[in-house]
Amino acid sequence: MGIAKRTLVLRGKTSHFHRIMKRWKCTCSYDGTDFYGWQSQPTFRGVQDKIEAALSKILKRKIDIFGSGRTDSGAHARGQVFHFDADWSYGEKAMKMALMTLLPDSIQIHSFFEVPVDFHARFSAIGKRYVYQIFRGFAAPEDSRYYFSTGERKTILDFDLMQEASSVFLGKHDFTAYSAASEGVQKGRINPVKTIQKIEMIQEHAKIRIYFEGSSFLYKMIRSLTGALIRVGEEKLTRGDLEEILESKKRTERVKTAPAKGLFLEEVYYKD
Amino acid sequence: MGIAKRTLVLRGKTSHFHRIMKRWKCTCSYDGTDFYGWQSQPTFRGVQDKIEAALSKILKRKIDIFGSGRTDSGAHARGQVFHFDADWSYGEKAMKMALMTLLPDSIQIHSFFEVPVDFHARFSAIGKRYVYQIFRGFAAPEDSRYYFSTGERKTILDFDLMQEASSVFLGKHDFTAYSAASEGVQKGRINPVKTIQKIEMIQEHAKIRIYFEGSSFLYKMIRSLTGALIRVGEEKLTRGDLEEILESKKRTERVKTAPAKGLFLEEVYYKD
Repeated sequence: MGIAKRTLVLRGKTSHFHRIMKRWKCTCSYDGTDFYGWQSQPTFRGVQDKIEAALSKILKRKIDIFGSGRTDSGAHARGQVFHFDADWSYGEKAMKMALMTLLPDSIQIHSFFEVPVDFHARFSAIGKRYVYQIFRGFAAPEDSRYYFSTGERKTILDFDLMQEASSVFLGKHDFTAYSAASEGVQKGRINPVKTIQKIEMIQEHAKIRIYFEGSSFLYKMIRSLTGALIRVGEEKLTRGDLEEILESKKRTERVKTAPAKGLFLEEVYYKD
Repeated sequence: MGIAKRTLVLRGKTSHFHRIMKRWKCTCSYDGTDFYGWQSQPTFRGVQDKIEAALSKILKRKIDIFGSGRTDSGAHARGQVFHFDADWSYGEKAMKMALMTLLPDSIQIHSFFEVPVDFHARFSAIGKRYVYQIFRGFAAPEDSRYYFSTGERKTILDFDLMQEASSVFLGKHDFTAYSAASEGVQKGRINPVKTIQKIEMIQEHAKIRIYFEGSSFLYKMIRSLTGALIRVGEEKLTRGDLEEILESKKRTERVKTAPAKGLFLEEVYYKD
């Protein structure tokens, strides 16, 4: 039934259900601490489940939403995008209010508006921006859900070494060595060649934020790149090591995956 | 046994337990969202319980700690102070590390140092600074645990009216009307006359923060004062109304208690 309706929308016709389906694009943020990631789970603890349940209640029928991509269990989003089809005619503000009333405080709806029926949150995306947040020492309780704390012993991460080494990842590379996607890559289901357009590092007192921009990323790629940069900051790996590991196209124990709690999906880019 | 040990310390003698007791002052912060307040509870979900359990494990005997005062269930602290007695001789840094290793991320230890044996976290305190945090509209998921969100309809809180009205509370007053302490006041157990030295209001985009400084405060007093100021911001009460309510010395339904989540104990002041 979900498929039938979508087909309907793509043809842009009114249906024998006497409904005019429209496609809606929605941007949301969430604190992923208490969720098993974006995607629906058998236990119904994905962010997607919560939003689908709220929309289904508002629209009085089962609604499926389509996200721009998954986020890891425990990772957060400040600008996740999803779309869905519905015959809603009470305006954008009313939908935002209805959703905010039903959703927990840990999920917020930023915008909700109609888009052409060929818009797809995932397939229309042309790029994404992520940030990884590190705290040197122990983050304050308010920050502890959103920063990876290095703890007392590792407070002396060398920011300059990290920044210098980060340039290794810029441009087009086979990122198999910095991902957890090797099985999919081996079976030919996943193309491990990705392009990183920009890496920006910001230091603010004890906080380090690393921004990554690219067309798309492999599973756990940003957390792996960050884990490698942290090792450089600790002077346990060099810029040359990162280069060598990248070229090896093989995952190694020398690269640790940084914890999910420090990762935010900041923005999903679309044409115009 | 706890009492015996404390007496011992106050006399400054070594005991027949062959231990030299020292008094330690500790400053901590916590995210109160998942705790039933500071104080120990039968369910062991107070912040105090968590810290006592960690200290008891480190010091290998039952430790009682004494806080500067309670904080409400769901309220937070950036500078709560407590003291306890122990024969610890491995230095401040080692204790901080040991505590941080055992405590959850929602509790952080800032400082730990030896104080004279007549120091008492509660009775030596000469003042406290609190802040109440309001978000006009819906706070982002990251802020939603620490700001009271007014929601869409109340986004137009009039900051200037609130600030002007706040001066009503400055100085020495019987604050019975702005507290939940009336029973204790009636029975003569509690003196409802308190002095507020300073109220500072800061507006930063959608965020409003109200800082209160005073020698001490009644139960739910800051949340009641804030609730009244919010009503002024909504133009449902006037500065004159707040004055009249204060003078009535009677709690009224016109004053709502603002939710605990927006309240932080910022600092406890001691002489020198």
